[in-house]
Amino acid sequence: MAEEVTRVMVAVNESSMKGYPHPSISSKGAFEWTINKIVRNNVSAFNLLFLHVQVPDEDGFNDMDSIYASPDDFKNMNQRDRIRGVHLLEYFVNRCHEIGVVCQAWIMKGDPKEVICHEVKRLRPDLLVVGSRGLGPFQKYVQLLYFL
Amino acid sequence: MAEEVTRVMVAVNESSMKGYPHPSISSKGAFEWTINKIVRNNVSAFNLLFLHVQVPDEDGFNDMDSIYASPDDFKNMNQRDRIRGVHLLEYFVNRCHEIGVVCQAWIMKGDPKEVICHEVKRLRPDLLVVGSRGLGPFQKYVQLLYFL
Repeated sequence: MAEEVTRVMVAVNESSMKGYPHPSISSKGAFEWTINKIVRNNVSAFNLLFLHVQVPDEDGFNDMDSIYASPDDFKNMNQRDRIRGVHLLEYFVNRCHEIGVVCQAWIMKGDPKEVICHEVKRLRPDLLVVGSRGLGPFQKYVQLLYFL
Repeated sequence: MAEEVTRVMVAVNESSMKGYPHPSISSKGAFEWTINKIVRNNVSAFNLLFLHVQVPDEDGFNDMDSIYASPDDFKNMNQRDRIRGVHLLEYFVNRCHEIGVVCQAWIMKGDPKEVICHEVKRLRPDLLVVGSRGLGPFQKYVQLLYFL
């Protein structure tokens, strides 16, 4: 059997509920699925890598509670995004800590598809888990899975 | 942690080398990956389901060593296909037996994509592993992974 741990990258994002810096249902589903169906009780054999990609808000129209009048306003917005992202990752890192799985988590900015592909090439995980909804013939969730 | 075993469906096919009723490199790769990266030493927690889809040879042009002169010739051809399929599955069932993983294996006829989708819907595995080559941005192997 393999000696090295199996490295599973899980791409996670926030709930679309505004002001609610918690994981989306599909991210939570992807995480729970990974733990329940893949890792199971073999916790020392797996490492989880959580990637959260933040999409730069180009026009700011989604931030209707913000008024931008100076460069500092954008700085504050970036700061707020950063905090929301950190809270999101905190949820997954805490869950891993409870379960006893080693993990790493980080935030990047850009187009999620491009960034995920880039990070997969860079870090070469054994498995990529991406929660999503109603894609193709497989309802509810589909993930791309990858091996070297 | 989950009580039920994780059911992994692995779609397998033969090597394209004629007269060589052995697994293709990608099927073998998909199987070894599943064992080494997912099942690991947690053998009692997983069941493997091997599906081999045989494509009906509509014109028989791939069978240049065969001459069809009577209905029996086609019967013999079907019989030969069946034997090759059984040998293919025997390889995987033997490997599982050595490793100690419970498995099931079966053969179906039709278009592999359609049959695999149909069987996934019917049996609802936790995970589908399909070895393939050079698909999309992920080189070497890509598999579709599925959860309910």
